[in-house]
Amino acid sequence: MEEKEEKKISAVVIRRLPRYYRYLGELVENDVQRISSKELSEKMKVTASQIRQDLNNFGGFGQQGYGYNVKYLYDKIGKILGVDEPHNMIVVGAGNIGRAICNYSDFSKRGFVIKGLFDNNPEVAGKEVAGVKVYNSEGIAQFIKDNNIEIVALTLPKVAAKEVANIVVEAGIKAIWNFAPVDLNLPKDVIVENVHLSESLMRLSYAIANQEKH
Amino acid sequence: MEEKEEKKISAVVIRRLPRYYRYLGELVENDVQRISSKELSEKMKVTASQIRQDLNNFGGFGQQGYGYNVKYLYDKIGKILGVDEPHNMIVVGAGNIGRAICNYSDFSKRGFVIKGLFDNNPEVAGKEVAGVKVYNSEGIAQFIKDNNIEIVALTLPKVAAKEVANIVVEAGIKAIWNFAPVDLNLPKDVIVENVHLSESLMRLSYAIANQEKH
Repeated sequence: MEEKEEKKISAVVIRRLPRYYRYLGELVENDVQRISSKELSEKMKVTASQIRQDLNNFGGFGQQGYGYNVKYLYDKIGKILGVDEPHNMIVVGAGNIGRAICNYSDFSKRGFVIKGLFDNNPEVAGKEVAGVKVYNSEGIAQFIKDNNIEIVALTLPKVAAKEVANIVVEAGIKAIWNFAPVDLNLPKDVIVENVHLSESLMRLSYAIANQEKH
Repeated sequence: MEEKEEKKISAVVIRRLPRYYRYLGELVENDVQRISSKELSEKMKVTASQIRQDLNNFGGFGQQGYGYNVKYLYDKIGKILGVDEPHNMIVVGAGNIGRAICNYSDFSKRGFVIKGLFDNNPEVAGKEVAGVKVYNSEGIAQFIKDNNIEIVALTLPKVAAKEVANIVVEAGIKAIWNFAPVDLNLPKDVIVENVHLSESLMRLSYAIANQEKH
């Protein structure tokens, strides 16, 4: 990384960046060049002062009243999020979630390039899902090395997810996107981002139960 | 709700409950009756004192050294999370994510009963996905009223998700599980739990970019 951020940005702001990135991306697509914190506040349903506090970390604002330079901020935040450069990725598990990821065009738009879909079912090997080739799981470790893979998405049942996680980490992977309802216990330098759908659904039922009480 | 919690449990603890619930559920399945905070700490990779602080909100611990009553805590937390009673639910959008939700047996185990899958593609109406009937989207509002539906999962593209959200809220729905990469602007009394996969993936790429810097 040639450029270093001079200011340390807080973790809370970092958590909010993907949402800013999504809104700014829509503005870029609609050819909006500048936007005020007030207008963005109305779109995003957060206070204008919150937006100013967050975005002033990144510069790109002109004179007062002129608003933010949309493309500048979009690129800057994209860079901080690490989506300014492509990331090669594979998906393991050709079930519904694995197929959904291959079909999701938003990911490739953001530089996540899906190089292969792996499954141990011999019937799907050789086929394609949304242009992504399906391979037999046996070849994962070699494929990772040959194709400069950075991210592995695991869309497998619990036990298989743990097994495959160990194999891909052994092959050098440092970033796992885990959809299995299990915590992967991996070395400290491996980043795991979990998508635990059951837990998400329980947060919803908690909110329902709690709302009824009030 | 006949029973009220005397103590107010903090939002941070609430956020952690689904994970406790998952671990306790596995212990129940394996017929483990009591567990100490130390053993649970090793399994969950959080400190024993964190576990004691969190779980002592709910009681169920015996004399020192005897550990927690697993089933008691599991049921108690399930009740707080609102999964002690069934929730009727429908899924709108019979794409990969919609099908994945219908196939996911963990949800029904936790009392989320999927009553129907809706899609506006006439070719899929009348079929079944993992035992869930597929219906034409036209009948959503009536179906919600007739089947006592509480939760609607939206697995649709952005524009369609917004449209359907308005229709189901009009039909009385107060809880939406949204998979579309869009913020639904709905009345304040409607709970929305978002699963934004692109944002999750960007948190992963942020962590990669940030780790490389250090």
